[in-house]
Amino acid sequence: MKTIVVSTNNQHKIQEIEQITKPFGFQLLSKSEAGAGDIDVVEDGATFEENSRKKAEEIMKATGKITIADDSGLVVDCLDGAPGVYSARFAGVDGDDEANNRKLIELLRPVPFAERTARFVSVITMVWPSGETLQARGEVEGHMVTEARGEGGFGYDPLFVPLGSDRTFGEYSPEEKNAISHRGRALQKLHQLLVEKGFGEA
Amino acid sequence: MKTIVVSTNNQHKIQEIEQITKPFGFQLLSKSEAGAGDIDVVEDGATFEENSRKKAEEIMKATGKITIADDSGLVVDCLDGAPGVYSARFAGVDGDDEANNRKLIELLRPVPFAERTARFVSVITMVWPSGETLQARGEVEGHMVTEARGEGGFGYDPLFVPLGSDRTFGEYSPEEKNAISHRGRALQKLHQLLVEKGFGEA
Repeated sequence: MKTIVVSTNNQHKIQEIEQITKPFGFQLLSKSEAGAGDIDVVEDGATFEENSRKKAEEIMKATGKITIADDSGLVVDCLDGAPGVYSARFAGVDGDDEANNRKLIELLRPVPFAERTARFVSVITMVWPSGETLQARGEVEGHMVTEARGEGGFGYDPLFVPLGSDRTFGEYSPEEKNAISHRGRALQKLHQLLVEKGFGEA
Repeated sequence: MKTIVVSTNNQHKIQEIEQITKPFGFQLLSKSEAGAGDIDVVEDGATFEENSRKKAEEIMKATGKITIADDSGLVVDCLDGAPGVYSARFAGVDGDDEANNRKLIELLRPVPFAERTARFVSVITMVWPSGETLQARGEVEGHMVTEARGEGGFGYDPLFVPLGSDRTFGEYSPEEKNAISHRGRALQKLHQLLVEKGFGEA
Protein backbone atom coordinates (compact mmCIF):
# COMPACT_ATOMS: atom_id res chain seq x y z
CA MET A 1 0.00 0.00 0.00
CA LYS A 2 1.35 3.38 -1.03
CA THR A 3 1.82 5.85 1.83
CA ILE A 4 1.11 9.56 1.47
CA VAL A 5 2.21 12.21 3.92
CA VAL A 6 -0.28 14.96 4.78
CA SER A 7 1.58 18.19 5.49
CA THR A 8 -0.37 18.91 8.70
CA ASN A 9 -1.06 17.51 12.14
CA ASN A 10 -4.64 18.80 12.08
CA GLN A 11 -6.70 15.60 12.53
CA HIS A 12 -9.79 17.30 11.12
CA LYS A 13 -8.07 17.98 7.79
CA ILE A 14 -6.48 14.52 7.73
CA GLN A 15 -9.87 12.84 8.13
CA GLU A 16 -11.40 14.85 5.27
CA ILE A 17 -8.46 14.05 2.99
CA GLU A 18 -8.62 10.36 3.96
CA GLN A 19 -12.21 10.06 2.69
CA ILE A 20 -11.02 10.97 -0.80
CA THR A 21 -7.68 9.16 -1.00
CA LYS A 22 -8.60 5.87 0.70
CA PRO A 23 -10.45 4.41 -2.32
CA PHE A 24 -7.23 4.74 -4.32
CA GLY A 25 -5.39 2.50 -1.85
CA PHE A 26 -3.32 5.27 -0.29
CA GLN A 27 -2.46 5.16 3.41
CA LEU A 28 -2.09 8.52 5.12
CA LEU A 29 0.61 9.62 7.55
CA SER A 30 0.45 12.89 9.48
CA LYS A 31 3.48 15.17 9.38
CA SER A 32 4.59 13.90 12.80
CA GLU A 33 4.03 10.23 11.90
CA ALA A 34 6.25 10.76 8.85
CA GLY A 35 9.06 12.09 11.08
CA ALA A 36 8.69 15.65 9.83
CA GLY A 37 6.92 17.00 12.92
CA ASP A 38 9.70 19.49 13.66
CA ILE A 39 9.57 21.11 10.21
CA ASP A 40 7.67 24.39 10.30
CA VAL A 41 6.98 25.51 6.74
CA VAL A 42 6.97 29.32 6.55
CA GLU A 43 3.69 30.28 4.87
CA ASP A 44 4.81 33.57 3.33
CA GLY A 45 3.19 33.21 -0.08
CA ALA A 46 0.75 35.84 -1.36
CA THR A 47 -1.71 33.20 -2.62
CA PHE A 48 -3.24 29.97 -1.33
CA GLU A 49 -1.69 28.21 -4.36
CA GLU A 50 1.84 29.23 -3.36
CA ASN A 51 1.47 28.32 0.31
CA SER A 52 -0.18 25.00 -0.49
CA ARG A 53 2.58 24.08 -2.95
CA LYS A 54 5.30 25.16 -0.51
CA LYS A 55 3.86 23.06 2.31
CA ALA A 56 3.62 20.01 0.06
CA GLU A 57 7.05 20.39 -1.54
CA GLU A 58 9.03 20.98 1.65
CA ILE A 59 7.55 17.99 3.42
CA MET A 60 7.92 15.81 0.30
CA LYS A 61 11.62 16.72 0.15
CA ALA A 62 12.08 15.98 3.85
CA THR A 63 10.29 12.62 3.75
CA GLY A 64 10.90 11.42 0.18
CA LYS A 65 7.23 10.43 0.00
CA ILE A 66 4.17 11.62 -1.95
CA THR A 67 2.79 14.54 0.06
CA ILE A 68 -0.58 16.32 0.18
CA ALA A 69 -1.08 19.80 1.64
CA ASP A 70 -4.11 22.02 2.12
CA ASP A 71 -3.92 25.79 2.36
CA SER A 72 -7.22 27.42 3.06
CA GLY A 73 -8.76 30.61 4.33
CA LEU A 74 -11.56 33.12 4.32
CA VAL A 75 -11.66 35.89 1.69
CA VAL A 76 -13.87 38.86 2.68
CA ASP A 77 -14.50 41.25 -0.24
CA CYS A 78 -15.05 44.45 1.76
CA LEU A 79 -11.75 43.82 3.59
CA ASP A 80 -9.72 43.62 0.35
CA GLY A 81 -9.59 39.84 0.66
CA ALA A 82 -8.49 39.75 4.31
CA PRO A 83 -7.97 37.64 6.36
CA GLY A 84 -7.04 35.59 3.23
CA VAL A 85 -3.67 33.86 3.48
CA TYR A 86 -3.43 35.29 7.00
CA SER A 87 -6.62 33.50 8.14
CA ALA A 88 -4.96 31.35 10.80
CA ARG A 89 -2.95 34.21 12.32
CA PHE A 90 -5.31 37.15 11.75
CA ALA A 91 -5.14 38.27 15.39
CA GLY A 92 -1.39 37.55 15.57
CA VAL A 93 0.67 34.37 15.80
CA ASP A 94 -0.53 33.76 19.37
CA GLY A 95 -4.19 34.29 18.43
CA ASP A 96 -6.73 31.46 18.43
CA ASP A 97 -10.07 30.98 16.66
CA GLU A 98 -11.80 33.13 19.27
CA ALA A 99 -9.37 36.05 18.92
CA ASN A 100 -9.53 35.82 15.12
CA ASN A 101 -13.33 35.84 15.14
CA ARG A 102 -13.43 38.75 17.59
CA LYS A 103 -11.16 40.80 15.35
CA LEU A 104 -13.22 39.97 12.25
CA ILE A 105 -16.49 40.92 13.97
CA GLU A 106 -15.02 44.27 14.98
CA LEU A 107 -14.04 45.04 11.38
CA LEU A 108 -17.37 43.86 9.91
CA ARG A 109 -19.81 45.45 12.36
CA PRO A 110 -19.89 48.85 10.54
CA VAL A 111 -20.40 47.16 7.15
CA PRO A 112 -24.00 46.55 5.87
CA PHE A 113 -24.92 42.86 5.49
CA ALA A 114 -25.30 43.12 1.70
CA GLU A 115 -21.64 44.21 1.42
CA ARG A 116 -20.34 41.40 3.62
CA THR A 117 -19.84 38.92 0.77
CA ALA A 118 -17.09 36.38 1.30
CA ARG A 119 -15.82 32.99 0.28
CA PHE A 120 -13.89 30.14 1.82
CA VAL A 121 -11.05 28.89 -0.38
CA SER A 122 -9.05 25.68 -0.15
CA VAL A 123 -6.15 24.73 -2.41
CA ILE A 124 -4.93 21.14 -2.19
CA THR A 125 -1.53 20.24 -3.64
CA MET A 126 -0.27 16.70 -4.17
CA VAL A 127 3.43 16.35 -4.99
CA TRP A 128 5.32 13.23 -6.02
CA PRO A 129 9.08 12.74 -5.40
CA SER A 130 9.47 12.92 -9.20
CA GLY A 131 8.30 16.53 -8.96
CA GLU A 132 4.98 15.80 -10.60
CA THR A 133 2.27 17.97 -9.05
CA LEU A 134 -1.52 18.09 -8.95
CA GLN A 135 -3.32 21.15 -7.61
CA ALA A 136 -7.06 21.56 -7.00
CA ARG A 137 -9.00 24.59 -5.76
CA GLY A 138 -12.39 24.59 -4.07
CA GLU A 139 -14.51 27.58 -3.10
CA VAL A 140 -17.80 28.24 -1.34
CA GLU A 141 -19.50 31.64 -1.58
CA GLY A 142 -21.42 33.22 1.26
CA HIS A 143 -21.99 36.12 3.66
CA MET A 144 -20.49 37.03 7.02
CA VAL A 145 -22.63 37.58 10.11
CA THR A 146 -21.37 39.46 13.17
CA GLU A 147 -22.74 37.14 15.86
CA ALA A 148 -21.19 33.70 16.12
CA ARG A 149 -23.72 30.84 15.79
CA GLY A 150 -23.26 27.09 16.20
CA GLU A 151 -20.78 24.76 17.85
CA GLY A 152 -19.74 22.81 14.75
CA GLY A 153 -16.76 23.27 12.45
CA PHE A 154 -13.78 25.39 13.42
CA GLY A 155 -12.09 28.68 12.49
CA TYR A 156 -14.50 31.24 11.04
CA ASP A 157 -17.32 28.69 10.51
CA PRO A 158 -19.67 30.25 13.15
CA LEU A 159 -19.61 33.58 11.23
CA PHE A 160 -20.02 32.22 7.67
CA VAL A 161 -23.44 31.65 6.04
CA PRO A 162 -23.09 29.82 2.70
CA LEU A 163 -25.09 31.18 -0.23
CA GLY A 164 -28.70 29.97 -0.23
CA SER A 165 -28.70 29.05 3.45
CA ASP A 166 -29.70 30.91 6.62
CA ARG A 167 -27.45 28.83 8.91
CA THR A 168 -23.76 29.34 9.60
CA PHE A 169 -21.23 26.57 8.90
CA GLY A 170 -21.07 26.28 12.70
CA GLU A 171 -24.67 25.05 12.55
CA TYR A 172 -23.98 22.42 9.85
CA SER A 173 -23.29 18.75 10.55
CA PRO A 174 -19.82 17.60 9.40
CA GLU A 175 -21.36 15.61 6.52
CA GLU A 176 -23.48 18.56 5.35
CA LYS A 177 -20.48 20.88 5.52
CA ASN A 178 -18.11 18.51 3.70
CA ALA A 179 -20.61 18.14 0.85
CA ILE A 180 -20.44 21.83 -0.09
CA SER A 181 -17.35 23.17 1.67
CA HIS A 182 -14.28 24.63 -0.01
CA ARG A 183 -12.10 21.73 1.18
CA GLY A 184 -14.71 19.17 0.20
CA ARG A 185 -14.89 20.66 -3.30
CA ALA A 186 -11.11 20.85 -3.68
CA LEU A 187 -10.88 17.20 -2.64
CA GLN A 188 -13.61 16.21 -5.12
CA LYS A 189 -11.55 17.91 -7.86
CA LEU A 190 -8.39 16.16 -6.68
CA HIS A 191 -10.29 12.86 -6.85
CA GLN A 192 -11.22 13.66 -10.45
CA LEU A 193 -7.61 14.57 -11.31
CA LEU A 194 -6.36 11.30 -9.82
CA VAL A 195 -8.85 9.33 -11.92
CA GLU A 196 -7.77 11.23 -15.06
CA LYS A 197 -4.15 10.49 -14.15
CA GLY A 198 -4.94 6.78 -14.33
CA PHE A 199 -5.27 5.89 -10.67
CA GLY A 200 -8.05 3.35 -10.40
CA GLU A 201 -10.26 3.11 -7.37
CA ALA A 202 -9.71 -0.06 -5.36
CA MET B 1 7.46 75.19 11.89
CA LYS B 2 6.27 71.75 12.98
CA THR B 3 8.21 68.82 11.53
CA ILE B 4 6.57 65.56 10.50
CA VAL B 5 8.41 62.33 9.76
CA VAL B 6 7.25 60.28 6.78
CA SER B 7 7.80 56.58 7.46
CA THR B 8 9.45 55.93 4.09
CA ASN B 9 12.45 56.91 2.00
CA ASN B 10 10.42 56.70 -1.23
CA GLN B 11 10.75 60.23 -2.66
CA HIS B 12 7.69 59.72 -4.85
CA LYS B 13 5.45 59.12 -1.82
CA ILE B 14 7.08 61.95 0.12
CA GLN B 15 6.34 64.43 -2.68
CA GLU B 16 2.68 63.41 -2.85
CA ILE B 17 2.30 63.73 0.92
CA GLU B 18 4.08 67.10 0.89
CA GLN B 19 1.46 68.58 -1.45
CA ILE B 20 -1.22 67.95 1.15
CA THR B 21 0.62 68.78 4.38
CA LYS B 22 2.57 71.87 3.29
CA PRO B 23 -0.41 74.26 3.47
CA PHE B 24 -0.77 73.36 7.16
CA GLY B 25 2.78 74.59 7.85
CA PHE B 26 4.27 71.12 8.36
CA GLN B 27 7.82 70.40 7.23
CA LEU B 28 8.52 66.83 6.12
CA LEU B 29 11.49 64.64 7.01
CA SER B 30 12.15 61.28 5.36
CA LYS B 31 12.79 58.29 7.60
CA SER B 32 16.55 58.65 7.04
CA GLU B 33 16.55 62.41 7.62
CA ALA B 34 14.82 61.79 10.94
CA GLY B 35 17.60 59.39 11.98
CA ALA B 36 15.38 56.33 11.70
CA GLY B 37 16.83 55.04 8.44
CA ASP B 38 18.01 51.80 10.02
CA ILE B 39 14.59 50.84 11.38
CA ASP B 40 12.90 48.25 9.19
CA VAL B 41 9.27 47.95 10.21
CA VAL B 42 8.04 44.37 9.68
CA GLU B 43 4.86 44.63 7.59
CA ASP B 44 3.17 41.47 8.80
CA GLY B 45 -0.37 42.80 9.20
CA ALA B 46 -3.29 41.19 7.35
CA THR B 47 -4.74 44.58 6.33
CA PHE B 48 -3.44 47.86 4.91
CA GLU B 49 -4.81 49.58 8.03
CA GLU B 50 -2.65 47.48 10.35
CA ASN B 51 0.55 47.85 8.35
CA SER B 52 0.04 51.58 7.90
CA ARG B 53 -0.54 52.09 11.63
CA LYS B 54 2.44 49.91 12.53
CA LYS B 55 4.78 51.84 10.21
CA ALA B 56 3.60 55.18 11.65
CA GLU B 57 3.69 54.12 15.31
CA GLU B 58 7.12 52.50 15.28
CA ILE B 59 8.80 55.46 13.61
CA MET B 60 6.91 57.92 15.84
CA LYS B 61 8.21 56.06 18.92
CA ALA B 62 11.78 56.05 17.56
CA THR B 63 11.81 59.73 16.63
CA GLY B 64 9.40 61.27 19.14
CA LYS B 65 7.84 63.26 16.28
CA ILE B 66 4.49 63.29 14.49
CA THR B 67 4.74 60.58 11.84
CA ILE B 68 2.84 59.82 8.62
CA ALA B 69 2.88 56.42 6.90
CA ASP B 70 1.30 55.07 3.72
CA ASP B 71 0.54 51.42 3.15
CA SER B 72 -0.81 50.67 -0.27
CA GLY B 73 -1.32 47.85 -2.73
CA LEU B 74 -3.27 46.26 -5.52
CA VAL B 75 -6.31 44.09 -4.72
CA VAL B 76 -7.31 41.74 -7.58
CA ASP B 77 -10.71 40.12 -7.03
CA CYS B 78 -10.16 36.92 -9.03
CA LEU B 79 -6.95 36.31 -7.05
CA ASP B 80 -8.74 36.46 -3.65
CA GLY B 81 -7.36 39.95 -3.09
CA ALA B 82 -3.74 39.13 -3.97
CA PRO B 83 -1.19 40.66 -4.21
CA GLY B 84 -2.85 42.85 -1.52
CA VAL B 85 -0.63 43.51 1.50
CA TYR B 86 2.06 41.52 -0.32
CA SER B 87 2.09 43.91 -3.30
CA ALA B 88 5.70 45.06 -2.89
CA ARG B 89 7.10 41.56 -2.42
CA PHE B 90 4.72 39.52 -4.61
CA ALA B 91 7.58 37.82 -6.48
CA GLY B 92 9.62 37.41 -3.26
CA VAL B 93 11.64 39.83 -1.13
CA ASP B 94 14.29 40.15 -3.85
CA GLY B 95 11.72 40.81 -6.57
CA ASP B 96 11.35 44.21 -8.25
CA ASP B 97 8.46 45.87 -10.12
CA GLU B 98 9.30 43.89 -13.25
CA ALA B 99 9.29 40.52 -11.49
CA ASN B 100 6.05 41.39 -9.67
CA ASN B 101 4.36 42.42 -12.90
CA ARG B 102 5.59 39.30 -14.69
CA LYS B 103 4.14 37.09 -11.97
CA LEU B 104 0.81 38.94 -12.03
CA ILE B 105 0.53 38.68 -15.83
CA GLU B 106 1.13 34.94 -15.62
CA LEU B 107 -1.70 34.52 -13.10
CA LEU B 108 -4.11 36.79 -15.00
CA ARG B 109 -3.58 35.58 -18.55
CA PRO B 110 -6.08 32.67 -18.28
CA VAL B 111 -8.74 34.96 -16.72
CA PRO B 112 -11.27 36.73 -19.03
CA PHE B 113 -10.99 40.55 -19.02
CA ALA B 114 -14.44 41.02 -17.47
CA GLU B 115 -13.34 39.02 -14.41
CA ARG B 116 -10.10 40.95 -13.96
CA THR B 117 -11.62 43.64 -11.70
CA ALA B 118 -9.21 45.19 -9.21
CA ARG B 119 -8.59 48.24 -7.05
CA PHE B 120 -5.62 50.13 -5.74
CA VAL B 121 -5.86 50.89 -2.02
CA SER B 122 -3.86 53.34 0.09
CA VAL B 123 -4.21 53.80 3.84
CA ILE B 124 -2.47 56.83 5.34
CA THR B 125 -1.91 56.98 9.11
CA MET B 126 -0.81 60.08 11.02
CA VAL B 127 0.26 59.50 14.63
CA TRP B 128 1.10 62.11 17.26
CA PRO B 129 3.47 61.42 20.20
CA SER B 130 0.37 61.78 22.43
CA GLY B 131 -0.97 58.62 20.74
CA GLU B 132 -3.65 60.51 18.86
CA THR B 133 -4.16 58.96 15.43
CA LEU B 134 -5.82 59.88 12.14
CA GLN B 135 -6.34 57.26 9.44
CA ALA B 136 -7.63 57.81 5.89
CA ARG B 137 -8.29 55.27 3.12
CA GLY B 138 -8.41 55.94 -0.60
CA GLU B 139 -9.36 53.53 -3.39
CA VAL B 140 -9.54 53.54 -7.17
CA GLU B 141 -11.44 50.82 -9.04
CA GLY B 142 -10.33 49.38 -12.36
CA HIS B 143 -9.36 46.41 -14.52
CA MET B 144 -6.09 44.60 -15.08
CA VAL B 145 -4.57 44.16 -18.54
CA THR B 146 -1.93 41.54 -19.32
CA GLU B 147 0.38 43.65 -21.46
CA ALA B 148 2.25 46.46 -19.73
CA ARG B 149 1.62 49.92 -21.25
CA GLY B 150 3.21 53.29 -20.45
CA GLU B 151 6.37 54.54 -18.81
CA GLY B 152 4.75 56.60 -16.03
CA GLY B 153 4.01 55.71 -12.42
CA PHE B 154 5.59 52.72 -10.73
CA GLY B 155 4.66 49.30 -9.38
CA TYR B 156 1.62 47.77 -11.10
CA ASP B 157 0.61 51.05 -12.81
CA PRO B 158 1.36 49.80 -16.38
CA LEU B 159 -1.16 46.93 -15.90
CA PHE B 160 -3.99 48.91 -14.24
CA VAL B 161 -6.76 50.66 -16.22
CA PRO B 162 -8.92 52.84 -13.95
CA LEU B 163 -12.70 52.58 -14.40
CA GLY B 164 -14.00 54.71 -17.28
CA SER B 165 -10.62 54.99 -18.98
CA ASP B 166 -8.87 53.01 -21.70
CA ARG B 167 -5.35 53.97 -20.63
CA THR B 168 -3.24 52.36 -17.91
CA PHE B 169 -1.92 54.40 -14.96
CA GLY B 170 1.45 54.02 -16.70
CA GLU B 171 0.04 56.19 -19.48
CA TYR B 172 -1.20 58.93 -17.10
CA SER B 173 0.71 62.10 -16.29
CA PRO B 174 1.63 62.42 -12.58
CA GLU B 175 -0.98 65.20 -12.12
CA GLU B 176 -3.73 63.19 -13.79
CA LYS B 177 -2.86 60.14 -11.71
CA ASN B 178 -2.69 62.02 -8.40
CA ALA B 179 -6.13 63.53 -9.01
CA ILE B 180 -7.88 60.14 -8.99
CA SER B 181 -5.37 57.72 -7.49
CA HIS B 182 -5.81 55.78 -4.25
CA ARG B 183 -3.01 57.71 -2.54
CA GLY B 184 -4.32 61.03 -3.85
CA ARG B 185 -7.78 60.22 -2.48
CA ALA B 186 -6.44 59.06 0.91
CA LEU B 187 -4.44 62.29 1.16
CA GLN B 188 -7.50 64.39 0.26
CA LYS B 189 -9.36 62.65 3.11
CA LEU B 190 -6.45 63.25 5.48
CA HIS B 191 -6.54 66.91 4.49
CA GLN B 192 -10.24 67.01 5.39
CA LEU B 193 -9.59 65.28 8.73
CA LEU B 194 -6.86 67.79 9.57
CA VAL B 195 -9.21 70.69 8.85
CA GLU B 196 -11.91 69.09 11.03
CA LYS B 197 -9.33 68.64 13.77
CA GLY B 198 -8.81 72.40 13.81
CA PHE B 199 -5.60 72.74 11.82
CA GLY B 200 -5.92 75.88 9.75
CA GLU B 201 -4.27 76.23 6.39
CA ALA B 202 -1.44 78.78 6.34
